[in-house]
Amino acid sequence: MHAVVSGHRLPYISGRTGNLTARRSKRANTTVRMAFREDGPTVAVVGVTGAVGQEFLQVLSDRDFPYRSIRMLASRRSAGRHLSFENREYTIEELSPESFDGVDVALFSAGGSVSREFGPVAAERGAVVVDNSSAFRMDPGVPLVIPEVNPDAMKHIRLEGRSKGAIIANPNCSTIICLMAATPLHRRAKVVRMVVSTYQAASGAGAAAMEELELQTREVLDGKRPTCKIFKQQYAFNLFSHNAPVLSNGYNEEEMKLVKETRKIWNDEDVKVTATCIRVPVMRAHAESVNLQFENPLDEDTAREILKGAPGVVVIDDRGANRFPTPLEVSNKDDVAVGRVRQDVSQDGNHGLDIFVCGDQIRKGAALNAVQIAEMLL
Amino acid sequence: MHAVVSGHRLPYISGRTGNLTARRSKRANTTVRMAFREDGPTVAVVGVTGAVGQEFLQVLSDRDFPYRSIRMLASRRSAGRHLSFENREYTIEELSPESFDGVDVALFSAGGSVSREFGPVAAERGAVVVDNSSAFRMDPGVPLVIPEVNPDAMKHIRLEGRSKGAIIANPNCSTIICLMAATPLHRRAKVVRMVVSTYQAASGAGAAAMEELELQTREVLDGKRPTCKIFKQQYAFNLFSHNAPVLSNGYNEEEMKLVKETRKIWNDEDVKVTATCIRVPVMRAHAESVNLQFENPLDEDTAREILKGAPGVVVIDDRGANRFPTPLEVSNKDDVAVGRVRQDVSQDGNHGLDIFVCGDQIRKGAALNAVQIAEMLL
Repeated sequence: MHAVVSGHRLPYISGRTGNLTARRSKRANTTVRMAFREDGPTVAVVGVTGAVGQEFLQVLSDRDFPYRSIRMLASRRSAGRHLSFENREYTIEELSPESFDGVDVALFSAGGSVSREFGPVAAERGAVVVDNSSAFRMDPGVPLVIPEVNPDAMKHIRLEGRSKGAIIANPNCSTIICLMAATPLHRRAKVVRMVVSTYQAASGAGAAAMEELELQTREVLDGKRPTCKIFKQQYAFNLFSHNAPVLSNGYNEEEMKLVKETRKIWNDEDVKVTATCIRVPVMRAHAESVNLQFENPLDEDTAREILKGAPGVVVIDDRGANRFPTPLEVSNKDDVAVGRVRQDVSQDGNHGLDIFVCGDQIRKGAALNAVQIAEMLL
Repeated sequence: MHAVVSGHRLPYISGRTGNLTARRSKRANTTVRMAFREDGPTVAVVGVTGAVGQEFLQVLSDRDFPYRSIRMLASRRSAGRHLSFENREYTIEELSPESFDGVDVALFSAGGSVSREFGPVAAERGAVVVDNSSAFRMDPGVPLVIPEVNPDAMKHIRLEGRSKGAIIANPNCSTIICLMAATPLHRRAKVVRMVVSTYQAASGAGAAAMEELELQTREVLDGKRPTCKIFKQQYAFNLFSHNAPVLSNGYNEEEMKLVKETRKIWNDEDVKVTATCIRVPVMRAHAESVNLQFENPLDEDTAREILKGAPGVVVIDDRGANRFPTPLEVSNKDDVAVGRVRQDVSQDGNHGLDIFVCGDQIRKGAALNAVQIAEMLL
């Protein structure tokens, strides 16, 4: 029942799609590949039963990723289940070191511990790992990549004629969505400080969190006590500080990812970032209020033009109609939407801007970005 | 049906209380005043059928406000309806100039146009008006007051032996909730710049908006197209830029209230404020992410101690348990809750703090603050 609404519980098994989110493409279930590219890479999807794992398949199909074959990998719990993808039947295999023999590209989204255990194993066996967890993001030897932002960070890694594997890290969803909008402005006027407040969706905590939000909402509307398993407090009609562990400096891990990953991706140790990360009762797209301070002046009209020309970014900024980006509008979409572009009245001399950004957490925030990285390897 | 959940549709008429919000006190329906203060003021409640109007009654009762009598005033549409309050029956009267004859304190919450038309009339007839609308807030002759913050702004206005009436403005809900937490810190270290991102509840748009949020949520869960009357887009499981009109500088009116009202309340034309105001699918309490820059250093421990000692403020800041303020927790509560108090890593030398604030929009954001102002008149 809940899967019908949250729409992200194994769509390739249940065939269901969501109605809390914008209509998702059904292409994946209907397209027939004329031919599989015999010269294409063999792909492994690690954590295929999760929300991001399922989105990996959706994106591979939507983009006609030229794979030779795909291995559907998950924990023992899901091993043996059947899965239908692009008119072929697959049996989900239990993840093991041997799973990566002959694999060219391994898309990981099964949590940090699985990545830490199997990421290096997959790389040793020659696979290029694109890891969606935080396990290797800050490792100096691991590129942290948003294709539209810092493709050069991975240019030394190729599939063709490679002698060994490698690991490439996918940034955190909040970082990807923020930097998709902030980077084009940073290139023009150099961001010196960024104050970010997030409005984060349930999907960041996985499909089970999305189902809990829906279940709780039904319970509260029925006057019942809400079920709190994934989160320890009521989420329906409420919001709370992000559930990531809080560090000794008072920031939670989610917030420090924005601080540290921005520095690494921009290759700028001096950029100052602070963030407050909040979970809101929204299903699958994040929103972020971003205040920017620039080294050089940048007026709002120029900023809007820069954003309109930025790859993977769409500008929704109609002041007269009070129409700006919303999480629902970007759900199941590739582009990150930006609006509320305005000169910051609290800063002098056009050295500040406020913007509001929305992006699909599962798609550009995770699966799409990872597949784009894989495409750059070809 | 929706009133049962939103719980703010004429509780004194329907007797219903909410279950989407924290349990509200039922005292108002059960208390019997031993004696009405014959020397107390005659109070007029303008807009008594609205969410704030109903909360005026709740707060007057909760605080044993010593009124001699109360006039229940509303538009013609509601005139003639019966209302039970503190074991007395009232008939709602249609608002007219004569409504204010003999009235000492008039609590207005019926929108800006009603305030503009009848506020001066009530004052002419000798009443002290406490106006919850934005009509007079920026009028240099009208005090804009948060009792815990700037009581001196209204010290020249008294009920006893007054020769004429006056108008006192209640600040905007977002301003009140933000400044309840920021002011004690401002007094210690002087805030030079404040970056605010809000997470605003449906109640700010009135009881009908709360009902629409609930109705839409039921519809979306049932797979139906959501009803959009109050807001022009889906609110359930979504969020959007505040619906206030957007001004030529790109800020909406709600955001500029935070900018301008802060300067007036702090009597500091130099304080720099920027705000991004967002509506989230929460019923009746606002949350705000506030980044503070100080002229003088202020460490987080000192800040927390200052906040613990601040009137009307409660600190909820348990990093180990990841327990911080939530809108649900402060719903129907008087105190504004503050947490996530931490040194801003993007600022040097203890000159910055990040905090997260939650407050009941209808109560401290509106009705309670107004009744506190009325109490100061006694």
